[in-house]
Amino acid sequence: MEVTREIPSARRVLAETRRSGRRIAFVPTMGALHVAHVSLMKAAKHASGYLVVSIFVNPTQFAPGGDFERYARDEAGDLEICQKAGVDLVFIPPPEAMYRPDATTTVHVARLTDTLCGPCRPGHFDGVTLVVAKLFNIVQPDVTYFGEKDFQQLAVIRRMVRDLDMPIEIVGCPTIREPDGLAVSSRNAYLTDAQRRQATSLYRSLCAARTRIQAGARNPVELAAHMRRIIDEAGPANVDYISVVDPDSMQPVQRIDKPVLIALAVHVGPARLIDNLLVDPHRTAD
Amino acid sequence: MEVTREIPSARRVLAETRRSGRRIAFVPTMGALHVAHVSLMKAAKHASGYLVVSIFVNPTQFAPGGDFERYARDEAGDLEICQKAGVDLVFIPPPEAMYRPDATTTVHVARLTDTLCGPCRPGHFDGVTLVVAKLFNIVQPDVTYFGEKDFQQLAVIRRMVRDLDMPIEIVGCPTIREPDGLAVSSRNAYLTDAQRRQATSLYRSLCAARTRIQAGARNPVELAAHMRRIIDEAGPANVDYISVVDPDSMQPVQRIDKPVLIALAVHVGPARLIDNLLVDPHRTAD
Repeated sequence: MEVTREIPSARRVLAETRRSGRRIAFVPTMGALHVAHVSLMKAAKHASGYLVVSIFVNPTQFAPGGDFERYARDEAGDLEICQKAGVDLVFIPPPEAMYRPDATTTVHVARLTDTLCGPCRPGHFDGVTLVVAKLFNIVQPDVTYFGEKDFQQLAVIRRMVRDLDMPIEIVGCPTIREPDGLAVSSRNAYLTDAQRRQATSLYRSLCAARTRIQAGARNPVELAAHMRRIIDEAGPANVDYISVVDPDSMQPVQRIDKPVLIALAVHVGPARLIDNLLVDPHRTAD
Repeated sequence: MEVTREIPSARRVLAETRRSGRRIAFVPTMGALHVAHVSLMKAAKHASGYLVVSIFVNPTQFAPGGDFERYARDEAGDLEICQKAGVDLVFIPPPEAMYRPDATTTVHVARLTDTLCGPCRPGHFDGVTLVVAKLFNIVQPDVTYFGEKDFQQLAVIRRMVRDLDMPIEIVGCPTIREPDGLAVSSRNAYLTDAQRRQATSLYRSLCAARTRIQAGARNPVELAAHMRRIIDEAGPANVDYISVVDPDSMQPVQRIDKPVLIALAVHVGPARLIDNLLVDPHRTAD
């Protein structure tokens, strides 16, 4: 496994790989690697000969006063996980290599970022699209892997790649969950034991919504209210949103008559947690 | 010479070229090819084994009511010029292959687009950066060539490529001029003989400004006023701007004490003409 911190050396290694005819897979991360990242790496390694992982806690996708400073950083642990997962190249650029003081270019995906996490986190998706565009141009992968836990992010990146004709295949991978259903996230580490138990209400509310839809519920407003009750019963939580949206456009639906994404963002203690479930109203419970 | 109108077939041809180890040079154009385009093609062909030219009159960089409809189109003539210039691949996408109705991604370069043609042509540079980003991702050239006549465009594209870490070298090529100094442009075809003679005042005003700077003039406001007089004396013209800017930032300078770009945009009859000159105050007349 090679580790590089510089853009030119990453390019050199990757140019050689490309010349050898190998297909390059890429998993961009913010480090603090856990089983969900490992699932992406395994999918990537399985599909492709050569696996690149980037570790970059991207400052531009955090709001001022957000959790950028306390976001977990454990490079030694991350490198061990990469090694075990069969990663070929780890790219760990310092912030100053990624952002020049006089940079003025932005990449914006409109519409898809108007809903869900967009209004709650102003500038967040612009930070994501910019850093992902840069990483894609540095790594030039054939295929990249993103988790469906960040469903809106995945949709935004797919749209950017399509609209800018980037020659990259995007693969979405299923959300990895703890045994009790909580979506695995670096931010779960912020929770006390009690908050950790409380946080299971998010997935429970999603499953309850799915059950209701599959039993014939079609009204997104009633559904969100029901989910809200489940979350409130579990303890004090600050709900950013509970929404039922079209999984392609990210726009709220008026009536659930085709597959929908149910998505939520809830502050439990110090952690802002997100989760979602894709539900097809025409399929019965599985 | 191959000609393709489809993105997938262009990608296929180019992937094969890349596999053969050849360096790919690219000259994006809006067609209506003339000697200035040929000079870019010759520079590109000379530096690189394989030359791609795109012909695409990009609707998103024209204002509503601009000259998109009457912009010259002569595919047969263009192909003949490409053939003679040794072009290997001509890419002529139809608009519907480039822009999907539900596209929502934009690429914006701030600051550099605040001055000169930016305020006069709202949305123009966003149209340019979007189409150039797309073409770069389709062609994936090693090196591309742009004319210095569109100096601000060149600066904007350089900035985009740098900020997004696109692995592409950008080469600026000198403005090609008619024997009387008028910068060669497709839009010169809009001029009557009288307007054509009048239009020579643009370059004359630039040369006069250079002479004054090299003789010690340091005040950009006085300089612009002098240029304005030269242009007005030649006939009725609608001046969009006459500016003295820093050639890196495109911001107006208060005093000319290092190399500056003198740039202007002037409507002569039905044609909006632009021109510019890079002037070093510490070099004497050449």
